[in-house]
Amino acid sequence: MKKPLRREDRRLDDTAAMALLKRGEYGILSTSDKNNRPYGIPVNYVVMEECVFFHCATEGQKLENITANNGVSFCVVGETDLIPEKFSTRYESVVVSGRAAVVSDGVLKKNVLRALITKYAPDHMATGKTYIDKLMGKTAVVRVSIDHLVGKARK
Amino acid sequence: MKKPLRREDRRLDDTAAMALLKRGEYGILSTSDKNNRPYGIPVNYVVMEECVFFHCATEGQKLENITANNGVSFCVVGETDLIPEKFSTRYESVVVSGRAAVVSDGVLKKNVLRALITKYAPDHMATGKTYIDKLMGKTAVVRVSIDHLVGKARK
Repeated sequence: MKKPLRREDRRLDDTAAMALLKRGEYGILSTSDKNNRPYGIPVNYVVMEECVFFHCATEGQKLENITANNGVSFCVVGETDLIPEKFSTRYESVVVSGRAAVVSDGVLKKNVLRALITKYAPDHMATGKTYIDKLMGKTAVVRVSIDHLVGKARK
Repeated sequence: MKKPLRREDRRLDDTAAMALLKRGEYGILSTSDKNNRPYGIPVNYVVMEECVFFHCATEGQKLENITANNGVSFCVVGETDLIPEKFSTRYESVVVSGRAAVVSDGVLKKNVLRALITKYAPDHMATGKTYIDKLMGKTAVVRVSIDHLVGKARK
């Protein structure tokens, strides 16, 4: 069941929310550290198999945090446009709640890296293959399940 | 003392980080709920008195979360520009760690709302005054202390 929004009139339907999630250039991944201090940082990502995937260094705050607490939030903001005369902003955003886990399967990891290149560097697939081989050993890939998806827009 | 970055070469100095924080159009506020589940959503904001301020409805997830846990993270992303041939992205971002508190002082609250209008609707200050009067009773203003500020850029 969906949690009601304060402004139901601004809810995006699931198809529109998922479309925005898929086309976003980057998202903010919010995690919490072992002392429950939130930490939000931007990541490039790709949506595959109904999950959000991103890659990162094999050590760092993100991985420490999801090891301590795998609950994460992931926010993508689409177009925004100030409407000064209404003291408002036209915007569209989508927020995912889910669980994060490091991908251990080598085949899936490679598929995600390939999907990232397809999304961000579609004209460089050939050199991308070499890049992936170089990256495989020194990058981590993380999967975030899309347990809840809430899209909002002010038109 | 500053926590070292994995990529020190990408650290923005404090002046540049603060400048980016001040000019950002919106930021993602990351909070955690009472079950320590992170929640990140975009907010318009203004920097004043060495703090980040935003306004929101007087009830909702954000306020519930900061009541349960006042530790927050606030992330602003500036210009981004894909560099496909390098499988990279030119970007600049700043992350604030701080504590959130609802502003109870009426004068400060009004000053923040005025500063928000100065930032987002500078050509509408006259009607903005009426808008603020209407808003005062039905909006909450939240202050986030800037305990740590980390700016990064890839040029």
